[in-house]
Amino acid sequence: MATVKSELLKPVASEKPAAHNKVSVIGTGSVGMACAVSLLLKGLSDELALVDVNEDLLRGETMDLQHGSTFLKMPAVVCSTDLGVTANSSLVIVTAGARQAKGESRLNLVQRNVAILKSVIPSVVQHSPRCKMIVVTNPVDVLTYVAWKLSALPPAHIIGSGCNLDTARFRFFIGQKLGIHSESCHGWVLGEHGDSSVPVWSGVNVAGVPLRELNPGLGGDQDPEHWEKIHKDVIASAYQIIKMKGYTNWAIGFSVADITESILRNLRRTHPVSTVAKGLYGIQEEVFLSVPCVLGANGIADLVRVKLSRDEEARMKKSAETLWAIQKELKI
Amino acid sequence: MATVKSELLKPVASEKPAAHNKVSVIGTGSVGMACAVSLLLKGLSDELALVDVNEDLLRGETMDLQHGSTFLKMPAVVCSTDLGVTANSSLVIVTAGARQAKGESRLNLVQRNVAILKSVIPSVVQHSPRCKMIVVTNPVDVLTYVAWKLSALPPAHIIGSGCNLDTARFRFFIGQKLGIHSESCHGWVLGEHGDSSVPVWSGVNVAGVPLRELNPGLGGDQDPEHWEKIHKDVIASAYQIIKMKGYTNWAIGFSVADITESILRNLRRTHPVSTVAKGLYGIQEEVFLSVPCVLGANGIADLVRVKLSRDEEARMKKSAETLWAIQKELKI
Amino acid sequence: MATVKSELLKPVASEKPAAHNKVSVIGTGSVGMACAVSLLLKGLSDELALVDVNEDLLRGETMDLQHGSTFLKMPAVVCSTDLGVTANSSLVIVTAGARQAKGESRLNLVQRNVAILKSVIPSVVQHSPRCKMIVVTNPVDVLTYVAWKLSALPPAHIIGSGCNLDTARFRFFIGQKLGIHSESCHGWVLGEHGDSSVPVWSGVNVAGVPLRELNPGLGGDQDPEHWEKIHKDVIASAYQIIKMKGYTNWAIGFSVADITESILRNLRRTHPVSTVAKGLYGIQEEVFLSVPCVLGANGIADLVRVKLSRDEEARMKKSAETLWAIQKELKI
Amino acid sequence: MATVKSELLKPVASEKPAAHNKVSVIGTGSVGMACAVSLLLKGLSDELALVDVNEDLLRGETMDLQHGSTFLKMPAVVCSTDLGVTANSSLVIVTAGARQAKGESRLNLVQRNVAILKSVIPSVVQHSPRCKMIVVTNPVDVLTYVAWKLSALPPAHIIGSGCNLDTARFRFFIGQKLGIHSESCHGWVLGEHGDSSVPVWSGVNVAGVPLRELNPGLGGDQDPEHWEKIHKDVIASAYQIIKMKGYTNWAIGFSVADITESILRNLRRTHPVSTVAKGLYGIQEEVFLSVPCVLGANGIADLVRVKLSRDEEARMKKSAETLWAIQKELKI
Repeated sequence: MATVKSELLKPVASEKPAAHNKVSVIGTGSVGMACAVSLLLKGLSDELALVDVNEDLLRGETMDLQHGSTFLKMPAVVCSTDLGVTANSSLVIVTAGARQAKGESRLNLVQRNVAILKSVIPSVVQHSPRCKMIVVTNPVDVLTYVAWKLSALPPAHIIGSGCNLDTARFRFFIGQKLGIHSESCHGWVLGEHGDSSVPVWSGVNVAGVPLRELNPGLGGDQDPEHWEKIHKDVIASAYQIIKMKGYTNWAIGFSVADITESILRNLRRTHPVSTVAKGLYGIQEEVFLSVPCVLGANGIADLVRVKLSRDEEARMKKSAETLWAIQKELKI
Repeated sequence: MATVKSELLKPVASEKPAAHNKVSVIGTGSVGMACAVSLLLKGLSDELALVDVNEDLLRGETMDLQHGSTFLKMPAVVCSTDLGVTANSSLVIVTAGARQAKGESRLNLVQRNVAILKSVIPSVVQHSPRCKMIVVTNPVDVLTYVAWKLSALPPAHIIGSGCNLDTARFRFFIGQKLGIHSESCHGWVLGEHGDSSVPVWSGVNVAGVPLRELNPGLGGDQDPEHWEKIHKDVIASAYQIIKMKGYTNWAIGFSVADITESILRNLRRTHPVSTVAKGLYGIQEEVFLSVPCVLGANGIADLVRVKLSRDEEARMKKSAETLWAIQKELKI
Repeated sequence: MATVKSELLKPVASEKPAAHNKVSVIGTGSVGMACAVSLLLKGLSDELALVDVNEDLLRGETMDLQHGSTFLKMPAVVCSTDLGVTANSSLVIVTAGARQAKGESRLNLVQRNVAILKSVIPSVVQHSPRCKMIVVTNPVDVLTYVAWKLSALPPAHIIGSGCNLDTARFRFFIGQKLGIHSESCHGWVLGEHGDSSVPVWSGVNVAGVPLRELNPGLGGDQDPEHWEKIHKDVIASAYQIIKMKGYTNWAIGFSVADITESILRNLRRTHPVSTVAKGLYGIQEEVFLSVPCVLGANGIADLVRVKLSRDEEARMKKSAETLWAIQKELKI
Repeated sequence: MATVKSELLKPVASEKPAAHNKVSVIGTGSVGMACAVSLLLKGLSDELALVDVNEDLLRGETMDLQHGSTFLKMPAVVCSTDLGVTANSSLVIVTAGARQAKGESRLNLVQRNVAILKSVIPSVVQHSPRCKMIVVTNPVDVLTYVAWKLSALPPAHIIGSGCNLDTARFRFFIGQKLGIHSESCHGWVLGEHGDSSVPVWSGVNVAGVPLRELNPGLGGDQDPEHWEKIHKDVIASAYQIIKMKGYTNWAIGFSVADITESILRNLRRTHPVSTVAKGLYGIQEEVFLSVPCVLGANGIADLVRVKLSRDEEARMKKSAETLWAIQKELKI
């Protein structure tokens, strides 16, 4: 039967095109959707696949995105409860997991979330054996380790969102204090995502001027300007926002889209993300901690060796021990 | 006392800059936040003010956006429960309102939402007497009328998001049927937002080819290809998504950002938005209905007179009567 | 020897990443560079290779782009006089050729440019056998045919920029006359690029309203409003600009970037580009003419069958005969 | 007479909108056009006015941009040889001037270009008394001083593009040496634009790690890795490119667009631009030199006091004396 389509269009190409920059988001809760929306509005991907166990939620969220396609450079948003929909992804973003409850430490979440990753990761890797993977689910450092073990991906391909968000918050607070855009306020929070993160005060600078040159006590507890409060605010941020709105999602979504851009566009920019820390700072354990990493199309191309003070190094080792104590008990 | 800031920076400019493209979003529920995030990721504004009556939610959402500032071209996101924070806005987006409940018709919402607008609009206009205003709250056509009356803004400055979203959905479904991006599938849904909207099948075209030339029954009830189902799907969309995820927000957020871009950048593009329909299609009542409007820095520069069939015109008049029947009972 | 690099960075990834969206531009004259700059500022590609026979010009232009890399999402701009630098391109844009002289018809250029293509195309295809190719060099319809023959690429992969620019000019002039952004003024110029192009007045519309409904003489020679002058202005544009600045480059560069976006992002949008016209409108010859094409990652997915008036069809056939008369004399 | 326009459109707004972010570019040579194209493709402005004394060139370039409007978020590009067309600009970019000839030092250009500024600046300021002005014409530090005197603008409103480009080149070369995107390679070139610029090696860092910690000789003449060559390459860049292609334009165009974004969007990011240096580093003269400046909607909000070594400070003072020796001879 002649249809409008058959009358209107004359096919030319014989083959179907393959996606070159497919991204899959596992978990369509508020964090997964903030990641998805950020990717779409930045036009980073040529196919977006969404997966969740809650089929109603999944289909509702997908339809809501699809209906906006005329406003986006978005060729295809697809979804399924079956991980087969993620096949041939360049990048898989894992946000599935139980949400951190009010006042709950990130580490308390671990047991609930390992089970979820076990049901997801092996199948993801089977469908996209060469994918890069960003793990966002908390506690992110432990779960990136778990995803690494479950996936058997090379270390370069497995990335925890880690302190990328802590660092963004750190820069925002510095920028507020100085009246300068956070993009121009340089500073890094490394180590374990969350309460034990390590702000590297020695590297904090504006236009190459280390702020410690202007205030040698910067970040210490004898500073009359109390810059150390900024790191306390970084740590408090998630708790405060969860208390007020129930969860955090926007800033983590924007930050994951930023990491994604470096990977899909092969930019080789530096980001503080969670990677295998063994061998750094005297760490012996197979744990994931955030250090600055050069991210490109092959995932983590290099990591940057940041010189830490004795105290900062001790905190990194302490985190490593804490994480390992948890990890060694896990049945993966 | 010397501070890092006073040592680091030497002030040069004496005056504080005024925002040139300030946007305020009233209501930080899921729709307001989808609008806000879309604006931020598109970099449309140099100041964003958020207002809500729920202070915890408001502050939580604002902090969550601010923490992502390093990933955005976003100089300032501010919030307050006090509408004074919106002063000197170029554009005010009104999303405050009770949410459409499962199965609830848009018109049922009206009574609850008029009261909200009365508490908001007069103060908004006092603080930004020359602003343009986009009303998104449902039932949008009635509430745009209410906001117009409450604000005393000129008709060019008051815009209902209207059928902008219905049209986006219409194009998406046409695109799916043809295998073409919705941006290249032209078609307009006009009139009343929601169940009584009017799809203008005569104008539906791809590359200037009217689809009715290929299928004269297009959109009618004798069409073996059942294109009329597309409009039924448009109407069903909101109900389906609300049933599955509880509310709709992404596509409306993207669509409002698209309207915003035309206004703030003075683009003079055409959008199907809700405006004073009196004098069109024999309509005598002071009602708002969607027709294609040319949007620029002065709001609605022109509206486009679309020739309708007798039946389409009758449906427009019917909508006008229905809306007026509601409006005349309202105490504004 | 320890270097800053070896001390600073610890390699993680073992393999080098392959480009996924490599674009090559052949010819770094003003058109090639306008294409390159448009692609870079739109962030469309993850590797850009430039080729020219003038090594000094080539290296100068490349360095000038590279020095701006900090302002761009541009991982790699490379160049060589050797076509090997284009290896594994997703898309190759051919702008090499002698420039249209003042007053010279596009067809006069043909002989000079066939020779150039013969020195380029076979090597390009050898290095990127699965690439899509956009031919921009004038006379574009003839040279796209020549490139097709030389490359042995499937018809879907070989695209002449054709009337994409004529159409953009058409829309701009319509927009100026109506006071509406050209993006919202729909109309298509098809057929042969340049003096014999065919404006499809029957399809010209704003918001689905055919302008011919408002002025039945639109585009004809009895129209008191003289809309036909717009097509005359389209034809005159290149001559006027060449007379004033010596060449045209910006609008063609922007238009090629727009085509590129549809291909690299697999958007399936419609563009008027030059493709094999045999079998359309009674055309028997193997000539390339512009018709609306659906462009995606596989190149030309479909072409749109536009119904033409008897007169318009006759002009298309006339162009086909003219082009064939030239083509059959060529030694390829 | 009824026209298509009068039949199609029904005017709603009564007033014409004023541009909020108008940018004017004075001089439509290769640099001016690279600035214009970068601004357009980044969508930074809602009106662009171009001015040149060569009317043919001016009109040719303007038409070429206008014809691409359908691919841009560009409402209006206008031009005139009369500076009245720039009225009510938020920002004026001055690129008019004689071009640096092969091998010519930037300072040799001065005499030719002062005369040009005298014919332009007073009229520009008369038409846009509150504008910010970016001077790009070389020798930029002297001519920014000249423009300041001629304009009587407050120091915060007059900005020389200065070492913004030198710094971009510096970061590109560092990035090439390390295999990292230049966006993540932090380092600043300050002082006089061109041969006497001062690279601040002490501040060069990646992820907060000062490269001098890894190589104490960095930038000195005893460094076995020869990092000092990078600054030599920065200085040589313009000469090399001019030798090869006759002029430089792309990187300066991208860099001016970056400065423009900070100003028009009120971003308060830091940029190395030329400002009044009197009072810094013991400089007594009224000269313009590049230091990091915080740029926002009020122009230069603050400048950043960078601590220099004794040698670096001496070079700054030497530049100041050299510039003043030239400036005091000028008849402005």
